[in-house]
Order: sequence, then structure tokens, then C-alpha cells
Amino acid sequence: MLLVTFSTGDGRHRLGVRRDAEVVDVGALSPGAPASLWDVVRDDAADAVAALLAGPVPESARHPVGAVRLHAPLRPGKIVGVGLNYTEHVAESARALDTAHELPQRPVLFCKPATAVIGPDEAIEHDASLTAQLDWECELAVVIGRTAKRVPPERALEHVFGYSVVNDVSARDQRRGGLWFYSKGQDTYAPFGPAVRTADEIPDPHALDLCLRVNGEVKQRSNTRYMLFRVPELIADISAGITLEPGDVIATGTPSGVGAGRSPQQWLRPGDVVEAFVQHIGTLRNPVVAVR
Amino acid sequence: MLLVTFSTGDGRHRLGVRRDAEVVDVGALSPGAPASLWDVVRDDAADAVAALLAGPVPESARHPVGAVRLHAPLRPGKIVGVGLNYTEHVAESARALDTAHELPQRPVLFCKPATAVIGPDEAIEHDASLTAQLDWECELAVVIGRTAKRVPPERALEHVFGYSVVNDVSARDQRRGGLWFYSKGQDTYAPFGPAVRTADEIPDPHALDLCLRVNGEVKQRSNTRYMLFRVPELIADISAGITLEPGDVIATGTPSGVGAGRSPQQWLRPGDVVEAFVQHIGTLRNPVVAVR
Repeated sequence: MLLVTFSTGDGRHRLGVRRDAEVVDVGALSPGAPASLWDVVRDDAADAVAALLAGPVPESARHPVGAVRLHAPLRPGKIVGVGLNYTEHVAESARALDTAHELPQRPVLFCKPATAVIGPDEAIEHDASLTAQLDWECELAVVIGRTAKRVPPERALEHVFGYSVVNDVSARDQRRGGLWFYSKGQDTYAPFGPAVRTADEIPDPHALDLCLRVNGEVKQRSNTRYMLFRVPELIADISAGITLEPGDVIATGTPSGVGAGRSPQQWLRPGDVVEAFVQHIGTLRNPVVAVR
Repeated sequence: MLLVTFSTGDGRHRLGVRRDAEVVDVGALSPGAPASLWDVVRDDAADAVAALLAGPVPESARHPVGAVRLHAPLRPGKIVGVGLNYTEHVAESARALDTAHELPQRPVLFCKPATAVIGPDEAIEHDASLTAQLDWECELAVVIGRTAKRVPPERALEHVFGYSVVNDVSARDQRRGGLWFYSKGQDTYAPFGPAVRTADEIPDPHALDLCLRVNGEVKQRSNTRYMLFRVPELIADISAGITLEPGDVIATGTPSGVGAGRSPQQWLRPGDVVEAFVQHIGTLRNPVVAVR
């Protein structure tokens, strides 16, 4: 299933399932249906939603995709980011951002807070008083389903609810003392969505095309098969020390083609539109707008 | 007021006010009383609690301090940590931890997730498979009361609910690619408490003694007057880019005397007991225990 959080005219956030060109309002199928995507994750209730969808779906529960507004799927407890997790990005980052040339021996981890999350079509804030180097990073997002603590790699995928897209927006000039939190943790720096594909429909998370466009021009194009540390290893490594809770998200790192790594360097400006795509999930589109 | 989260025999977490040697069970004073310290923060309800305390307090609502168990005051949405925020710690860190010798020009920020939080007397986990360099950092914690976004320094303290203590426990050998998240973000690495002193009772957060002991021996002793970036500047700087929400915590940095900076270096071992003290708040005591 391709799960979404959507609203119609009344603005109320609802749980939906995307089917072809329509969104099915799950709450309209049964009074006992889960009320939100977060509820589905917390209650491990994807099967229950699938069962509802297998029954009759009245016309009143069906909305054309173009008639709804999509939102971030849920508010994560935390987003654990993985830096330098594609070979060619390690090289461009070493050239442009003073990171190490060597491939990392352990996942390079950082954190984006929940306050950074925005949904599809919401604005990435460009605050010229804080940054002149706003950059993009298209990433496969792993949405945790079951609490993970000290999980071995061979059981790690049992803890995955599904997959989505995160654009790991980064103000390169806000790294401080080498730390990335203020660079990557600002409000609107974690566009998330447009949907969550349940894990049963992505048997191999390492066979997915990624692509990022700015104003229609391709900037990043790769495939998740080129990740250095793969999803099972990431879950095992993180959960060795840090409990992953339902709804937490792992942003699994970005391939080459970020603005910092280009020659000359390119940065996001107000008026730009960024589209981050991951195969089988969809395109996460966000405009960049000036604030202050 | 000195607010606590406590439980008695039934294990239920309750809101308390510490008065001398007893804890008053706020929920026992009125059926409409806030149910938790988090509720007080969210609803900006410290005055309502104070009003309840000004009335009669029946014997049944009073518990000797020794008869209750204290817990972490609340679960923060995020903990924003500040690195290198005391002059002498900048120097010891440069000697021992490869950080810059110069005083930082902007606050050096990182993040500890909510999953890292433990309360008084709960165990700091020592996992020998992950670290041989477990260290302590006594810090003044700022508990945010009102949402802060783009707050100027002169209005910043209006957004503070109160003050507490965080021990910014750090596995020095888990910095990765120079990032501190896995070093500082692991489960149990954010002891928090034992109480929150409401801001009205701390007119100047830069006149507080700090002290940290390991097994009774003083390791850190300083005063918050030596902070490089003070609380109003920190709130202004963070909130310029990152929304601070009610219940979020700023861990304002540690003075010199950490284990990494000592000669020879000293690390926490299973069996150790760490006591972090901040004046007018109290002592946050945690044992170190082996796991795995």
C-alpha cells in the first residue's frame, strides 16, 4: 500500500491510501478504522487497513489525487540522518566540504528534529540572514514500525514499517565546530513524503532509483544499491546504542550531485522548486521561499 | 516552585512540588489539578499550581522525600546541546578531543534525542562493546515554556519555563566523522532532573554553582557566570532557525573537568556513581551499570 496523510476542504488531516489516480479516505470505510498514518504505525495496523481496502469502497470515500492536499505522513519522534553513505558523495564532499576522503568505517550519524519536518508542496525557508549555501539531498527514508534496540542485521527489516522520501536540506555555512545540527536541523529542512510505501511492497530497499531535480533540471540520479551501509546494517548499528521507536525515520544518505559538490557550486534560491523522487514512492516537491 | 515527577508504591507518575523534606502530590489537592509536569509546561499553568499550594495541604497529599521515587521531569521533544560553552572546557577539549583552540564565534550545537533521557537514580548504561571512553558533563538545563521562533535576546527569558540539570553523558570514542550524535545520543546518555525550578525563582541563570562528583570525588566545579553564550543568546540563536517548543530542553554546556581533559584521562566504569549538582535545583545522581 501507498499510505498518505491528506486533507480536503475542511483541513482535517486524514489517513489515505493512494490507488492509481485517487486517494481512498480510510476513515470513511469503517467507524473503527485507524484515524491517522501515525496510528497505523503505532498499532502495527497495516493489515487492518489492507483488509478495509479489500472490501467495497464507496464513491464518497474516493477523492481524485488532484482534489486533495498531501501532508507529511507523520511527525517522527526523531530523524536519524546518515552522512557520507554513497561512495561518490564521499568524494565530492571531501572536495567541497572538508570531510574525510576515506570511506567511513562506521555510519556517520546526525539528527534532524521533528520541528524540521514539512510535507509536500510546503515551503523550504530561505533565510538570507542565516545562509547563502542552501543545498539539497535526496534520500530514501526508512520509517520504523516496531521498537528496535540491539537488533541484529538479519532481523532488522522486521522493524521497518515502510519507506518514504526525505530531502535532507542543508545550510552548508551553518556547520559549527564541524557539527551538522544547525546546518541540517532548521525548520523546513526535512521535507518528508509524499507517501509511505509499506515494507511488504519493497522486498529489496536496495534496488530503488533516486532522482532530484531543481527547476526541472536533474541534479542527482542514482540507485539505492550504491549505499555504503545498507538498511539492515544501519538499523543494527543505530539500535546498538539508540532505541528506534515506531514512527522514527532514518534518512539513509544522499548520492552525489549536491550543490556543494558542483563546479561552480550551486545553491537553492527563493523561487526554486526542488523535486526529490524515489522509485515506488513518488515525488516530493517543495518550493523555496524567502523569509524575514 | 521546585516541581518534580514522582511515584509511590503504585508506580503511577504524578506531579509533585518539593517543599523542604516533603513532596506535595498536586493531583491530591484538587480534581482539576494538572496531571503531570508536562501538562503544567504545555498549559503554562505554574501559577495555577502555586495557587493550589497556597491553600490547605492535607496530610494525605504530603509524602516524605525519602518515601517517593523521582523520575525525569518530562520527556522533551528535543534536547539541543551546546558544545564548548565554557572557556576552560574549550581549552581542555582542544587538548584532548581535537576540537578547535579558538573560542567559538557561534554556539556549537548538537542534539540528544528524547530516547536518551533517564531520571534520577536510573542507570547510565556502560556497553563495553561500544565505548571505553564514557564521560560526564554537568550542565544547567533550560526547559522551554512558550514556543520560541525568531526571539530576540531581550525577550528570550519570557520563553523559559524553568531550569534543571542534565548530565551530558558522552562516549568520546563514538564521535564519527567529527559528529557527536552517536557519542552523545545513546540511550541513558541524558540523565535529567531531579526537579525543575520555575523561572520566577531563578531571576539570574548566570549565578548558579555547578558541581559534579564521581564516587564522591569532585570532578567539575564552576558557576554558570562563566558561560560563553548565555541563555538569552542561546535561545535567540537557536530559535533564529529552529523552533523551540514547550518541553524542549537546552543543555547549556559544561565547564572544565571532564574525564577526557584530565591527565591521565578518566572514564566512567560500571559501579561508578555520578552526581551532577546545580545550585537551587538539586543533585542528579545516577549509577553506571554494565549492559550486554
